[in-house]
Amino acid sequence: MNKTEIINLRDEAFQHLTTELLPFWTNRMKDEVNGGFITHFDKDGNDTGEDEKSLIAQTRCLYTVASAHRAGYGNGELAELAKHGADFLLNKMWDEKFGGFYWMVDRKGNVKIDEKIIYGHSFAIYSLSEYTLATGDKRGIEYAGKVFDMLQKYCVDSRYGGYWEMFHRDWTLKGPGSAGGDRKTLDVHMHLMEAFTTLYECSGKEVHRRKLLEDIDLLLNVINHPKYKTGIPQFFKDWTVAPQIKFDIIWGWDRFSEEGQKGNATDNTCYGHNAEFAWLLIHALEILKISPESYAETFKIIFDHTVDNGIDTEFGGVYVEGPHSGGVYDREKEFWQQAEVLIGMLDGVILFNEKKYWEAYKNVHRFVFDKVINKGIGEWYPLLSRKGEPIWTHMGHSWKINYHTVRSMVQSIRRLDIILAKQ
Amino acid sequence: MNKTEIINLRDEAFQHLTTELLPFWTNRMKDEVNGGFITHFDKDGNDTGEDEKSLIAQTRCLYTVASAHRAGYGNGELAELAKHGADFLLNKMWDEKFGGFYWMVDRKGNVKIDEKIIYGHSFAIYSLSEYTLATGDKRGIEYAGKVFDMLQKYCVDSRYGGYWEMFHRDWTLKGPGSAGGDRKTLDVHMHLMEAFTTLYECSGKEVHRRKLLEDIDLLLNVINHPKYKTGIPQFFKDWTVAPQIKFDIIWGWDRFSEEGQKGNATDNTCYGHNAEFAWLLIHALEILKISPESYAETFKIIFDHTVDNGIDTEFGGVYVEGPHSGGVYDREKEFWQQAEVLIGMLDGVILFNEKKYWEAYKNVHRFVFDKVINKGIGEWYPLLSRKGEPIWTHMGHSWKINYHTVRSMVQSIRRLDIILAKQ
Repeated sequence: MNKTEIINLRDEAFQHLTTELLPFWTNRMKDEVNGGFITHFDKDGNDTGEDEKSLIAQTRCLYTVASAHRAGYGNGELAELAKHGADFLLNKMWDEKFGGFYWMVDRKGNVKIDEKIIYGHSFAIYSLSEYTLATGDKRGIEYAGKVFDMLQKYCVDSRYGGYWEMFHRDWTLKGPGSAGGDRKTLDVHMHLMEAFTTLYECSGKEVHRRKLLEDIDLLLNVINHPKYKTGIPQFFKDWTVAPQIKFDIIWGWDRFSEEGQKGNATDNTCYGHNAEFAWLLIHALEILKISPESYAETFKIIFDHTVDNGIDTEFGGVYVEGPHSGGVYDREKEFWQQAEVLIGMLDGVILFNEKKYWEAYKNVHRFVFDKVINKGIGEWYPLLSRKGEPIWTHMGHSWKINYHTVRSMVQSIRRLDIILAKQ
Repeated sequence: MNKTEIINLRDEAFQHLTTELLPFWTNRMKDEVNGGFITHFDKDGNDTGEDEKSLIAQTRCLYTVASAHRAGYGNGELAELAKHGADFLLNKMWDEKFGGFYWMVDRKGNVKIDEKIIYGHSFAIYSLSEYTLATGDKRGIEYAGKVFDMLQKYCVDSRYGGYWEMFHRDWTLKGPGSAGGDRKTLDVHMHLMEAFTTLYECSGKEVHRRKLLEDIDLLLNVINHPKYKTGIPQFFKDWTVAPQIKFDIIWGWDRFSEEGQKGNATDNTCYGHNAEFAWLLIHALEILKISPESYAETFKIIFDHTVDNGIDTEFGGVYVEGPHSGGVYDREKEFWQQAEVLIGMLDGVILFNEKKYWEAYKNVHRFVFDKVINKGIGEWYPLLSRKGEPIWTHMGHSWKINYHTVRSMVQSIRRLDIILAKQ
């Protein structure tokens, strides 16, 4: 780890972010006709015309431009874009009758799926809080607070703790099984931690802090594997481990058997989620003004598990998933897992100053810049083979957007600057 | 159990309710000067002048007059009184800044204790819902719904389930130990069941039903003793049993050692609570349209425990408390435990048609009418020796009021009518 090496990696990330990644989006995401963001682009960056605006893609775009503005990028242009996105989200996707945001509308804003999905609401809280922090527009924190209140009222399980995740439009709970009404997931509870962190950063309210701490407690002591500290994807209401099934409402293309169940349904953990959980928790502790030292052992176990099992030392990059005790099931490479492991490994370097995290960072950085980035276009391929050949090639759709990629660059640059300052 | 016997007992209760108990209150409870209810009376029924209006006494008085009106008593006079009480509660005791009700004001409505105590808020929900059901005044359910929402936001423990109970004015949690901020109690969770039952009866809202069912699940499977089904008074946040301590904010005069702890702090159950829990749950199931048959075994265990341990077959009436496994620690007689066991035993008769419950009912009925009622005055003595000599003699104060006594008569008469109809 020498200074020149760090500077070179930092510059590579900075150039990518400012001359490729952000321009990819600012050049094409603004829907001038209907408001909000256009989010469907093919491998060449052309609008596919798909007539969808998903809660996830709209809120993640809002987060992306607001957070990049707050981090100092875009010369004000990103704040304008953020306001444009917030207007559509609040005026077209908010359910005036029952409260909360619709899951899917068309480009004009007509409702396509009116269900209330907590995964999407976590991004509503996250992005609207970030929007107020970035721009000062109070509508963001007002609606983030409203969503938080509705989550407490309708979604918390006052029997076993945690949050129910899948609701009908009127906030009645959906049915069991693939409807998801009897499941609790790592995914939602992790993204609620992320959301409540920024909500608390923006509001300073004690109740936001308290619920964030309660969620962290759940993640550390119930949702993470007791020994390996790796995330367990799905649970029943009483926190017994549930076989990992595919839900009717999805926010990613994941591989399941024909019966809609994972091949290793009850012993499966995902490296990108684990690294993302660790760095999001480190960030949450910073906002909460709690020293990360108290959780150092957990972070060490998670980062070591990621390095020892998730990093492909032969072809580079991060695998998809494997068993909690170690090993790999799926050796393909998903874009978002690369993005999150980059940030996680840099936090590993900052916290523990260990060479193996730096080597892992460099490995994934190289894989991203050599294989994952769609050269000349600027965004990342969503899925690649182990060796780095693109399998899926779309640049954007309802659940593949700029949140992981832009955030990864913004957060990696910030961390590389910290590491550099210590040299 | 013959018809004449039932009729005689029913008439005795009816006469007491209509010519003694309700008149005791209607003749003196209305505060014509300041609004709301006067609740402090000595053994002769004279106003003691104590300058307090407690959230418990105001809401319980509201419940009493509203519920008695709904049950057909008072020729409309009680609905007037209920509106008089609701006006004071909503106009003087609601915290416009932080929401929720103050714990204690003076007679004029100046705040004396501004803390937010969930025990009191359970009675706010209960009485305001009952008020709307009785009178149609929508303000009741509006504020009951507001309190419910605040409880979900500020009080539910999203980590372990259940409700935190002791808050500062701004809904930040109070400290541990005697401040009560680290405890969860049977008392609060049982009264929330009672409150959510009437809230759901009034609103018909699914979320009120769902949270009621979650609370019932907690009571049956966590708060009740796993073997004896008797109530365990206090818990830490993770539902490990906590030694029963005295809190700084109290709502009853209970006996603790000098260290503020019960003599048998971790093995103590209260017969009146157990019988009250059982009949409140039977009522909740009725409102929820769930057959009580599914829980018949639990009700049987609880009623048998009450009869076998709580009933004084020598001097009559119900003891205070004893160990879960059977036996008695405290043989004095508290008024409210008599009131609740009367209703419970009649439910036992209706559900199981067993002679021992009828005998227990008659025993307690006799003790109440011969010893507990303050003859010529009309209300009940709060505490008596085992043999039935009054120990405390006040008729009303901030936490001894008409809720147990009037409700016991209204509910007993209703049940005696059902039993009579079956003869």
